[in-house]
Amino acid sequence: MSPFAPAAGKPQHGCGDAADVAPSVHAEDGTAFAFAVVATDMTSFARRGVLTTRRGAVQTPAFMPVGTQATVKTLLPREVREVGAEILLCNTYHLMLRPGLGTLVAAGGLHAFMGWQGPILTDSGGFQIFSLAGNARVRESGVTFRSHIDGSPHHLDPETAVALQLGWGSDIVMALDHLVGLPAEYEAVRDATERTHRWLDRCIDAFEDQGGKLRSALFGICQGGMDSALRTASARALAEVDVAGCAIGGLSVGEPKPVMAEMLELVAPILPPDKPRYLMGVGSPEDLWMGAARGVDMFDCVLPTRLARNGALFTPDGRVNIKQRRFADRHESLDSECDCEACTGFSAAYLHHLFRARELLGLRLASLHNLRFLARQMAAIRASIDAGRFGTAHASFMDRYRPVAATVAG
Amino acid sequence: MSPFAPAAGKPQHGCGDAADVAPSVHAEDGTAFAFAVVATDMTSFARRGVLTTRRGAVQTPAFMPVGTQATVKTLLPREVREVGAEILLCNTYHLMLRPGLGTLVAAGGLHAFMGWQGPILTDSGGFQIFSLAGNARVRESGVTFRSHIDGSPHHLDPETAVALQLGWGSDIVMALDHLVGLPAEYEAVRDATERTHRWLDRCIDAFEDQGGKLRSALFGICQGGMDSALRTASARALAEVDVAGCAIGGLSVGEPKPVMAEMLELVAPILPPDKPRYLMGVGSPEDLWMGAARGVDMFDCVLPTRLARNGALFTPDGRVNIKQRRFADRHESLDSECDCEACTGFSAAYLHHLFRARELLGLRLASLHNLRFLARQMAAIRASIDAGRFGTAHASFMDRYRPVAATVAG
Repeated sequence: MSPFAPAAGKPQHGCGDAADVAPSVHAEDGTAFAFAVVATDMTSFARRGVLTTRRGAVQTPAFMPVGTQATVKTLLPREVREVGAEILLCNTYHLMLRPGLGTLVAAGGLHAFMGWQGPILTDSGGFQIFSLAGNARVRESGVTFRSHIDGSPHHLDPETAVALQLGWGSDIVMALDHLVGLPAEYEAVRDATERTHRWLDRCIDAFEDQGGKLRSALFGICQGGMDSALRTASARALAEVDVAGCAIGGLSVGEPKPVMAEMLELVAPILPPDKPRYLMGVGSPEDLWMGAARGVDMFDCVLPTRLARNGALFTPDGRVNIKQRRFADRHESLDSECDCEACTGFSAAYLHHLFRARELLGLRLASLHNLRFLARQMAAIRASIDAGRFGTAHASFMDRYRPVAATVAG
Repeated sequence: MSPFAPAAGKPQHGCGDAADVAPSVHAEDGTAFAFAVVATDMTSFARRGVLTTRRGAVQTPAFMPVGTQATVKTLLPREVREVGAEILLCNTYHLMLRPGLGTLVAAGGLHAFMGWQGPILTDSGGFQIFSLAGNARVRESGVTFRSHIDGSPHHLDPETAVALQLGWGSDIVMALDHLVGLPAEYEAVRDATERTHRWLDRCIDAFEDQGGKLRSALFGICQGGMDSALRTASARALAEVDVAGCAIGGLSVGEPKPVMAEMLELVAPILPPDKPRYLMGVGSPEDLWMGAARGVDMFDCVLPTRLARNGALFTPDGRVNIKQRRFADRHESLDSECDCEACTGFSAAYLHHLFRARELLGLRLASLHNLRFLARQMAAIRASIDAGRFGTAHASFMDRYRPVAATVAG
């Protein structure tokens, strides 16, 4: 019987009690990657850790800004670093199409090409193929699709996904997964989840064959949609295999927030406590706190920069839209607690003007602010775990912050 | 007889011999503005000077980047300063419509609003009214027009143009002029030029009445189209009145480059040598050298930033378009002689990628580069005048630089 068949009873939780985790560096000999949990919260599953890569360390819980096409939209790498980001995410789907592996290798790798010296995690391309590309067709061997840019045909399989990511020098390589959009039939989710794990085995072999451990780290992904049994089985399968980190995929795709929290509570305790847990595609302030409370170490999302380009800005009191008339004559900084260049150098009235006048500087300043706001949340999360007051800090944040949307904004 | 009637003979040149100009600070007591010529070229009309305003000094010949809507497109004020600009131009037409005088005054003035601490010159609004607004209708009292944003009706007259500019704190106020587009009938150009001078008299009175000299400086504008006699008469009229500087308007509007040079040669020597000469709307590298050689001290143009957003970049060998395929794998800086962030931090291949991928960072880096390129030209022009080798430097630049267009790109 497939481990992904519906379970009869209540899923068992794994060995995820935070108190089990020793606060010591957990590095494998001869690898380019290590992860250590350095503090745990007593009232939740939240934990403090340090990821170590060849290109530097990352304090966790960490938010990774997204540099889709080898650039975090509107910002220089230097600025992304200055707002407090220690690691970026780039998209394999986009990079393989443009500029392509050849150009990236000729440039001396992705880091040299885009001018970011810190660690980079690249996704596998799966998400974009199923959401952005045309004519995606999955076979057991891999997936064929058409470029959203010019309609040209392409093929991606587990081995190619690993080769591309290692080829341009990613510090963290994501395994190719198969995910299905919501709403989905049970069978479709089950089939995709099973395929994800068969592909993961091939990714592990490919990563080994290509000498990946000397340069990089491979993360696997658990799927399972919103089905508790499939989620549990997928997390258990992921917990068993030789990967350096465990990602939770297929969430933050439009489901209600309580469902996402429930899935996380199910999955996180099953995943090995000595490996980093990465919740993919999550990046609203309230979700970062929620995920951290459930033991997530890494997050990524286009949300802060995409919202920014629409004029939606994070403040300690919630999200506001700077284009609203009420900001036209607010001659003080948008967020007096923020130390970003938008808030220290300019007034809310000026930001309002830039957006009304459709000036590109507005998009820059808004992106800078939203990324800085999230980086400050992550720093607050880490500091509160270190100080043993995560629960209080979380409650204090949520008392004040008013999210705009009731469902997950993906 | 009107001084703008066609002259019978050859126009006389004025007292513009560079050797006449004493290299001493020429400041009027009790004013917020001074201009001094500190060196002159022996082989041309080129000259080195210093403008002094309440907000700092400007070395001339100077190029003023354009911050149309209280922002130099895509760039922070800090970056504009860092590329070497000492003075900005902002557009009265745009500012009066959005954000409006009330918001700018409430913000503590234009400088505080946009975060630029150096001098700002504002144009009078005339150019945009005649080129951008709808239904522009000129009467002797002033001009009525409709906003290009929302079609709302507006009125601008000499007194209002001065009041707006003084109201938000411009360091250099431009008089309201009347210009007609090309091609134009002689009578239309003559009428507009005559009106420009009647309006100038009203601007001078308004500037005086509003206490302008204590805070700012008023520049007048000569017009006259491409008609030698009208140009000469207009320049003579401008030379006679109480303004702090003399602008040359109505050029760089599509006429052949030799015609622009000819008009400049006619006008510049007539204008008082102890006042700065400002050639409006000129900003291609070859035109800056050409204008400086004819005694121009100040320039402005949207060209460098507008071209940049189209991927057209200045290099010492001429203008190139970074979107061209030949840059896709050029893994070295676009201009190895340039010290801007685009050229020192990134390859031409990366810039090419950003433009192909329509990434906003490309627009930023290109704008930064083109402004830095022009700032370096201005520095080279100034240094060569100081060193008594302007002619050689000009020839050396032109030997290498290949402009793309044969006519003035305005």
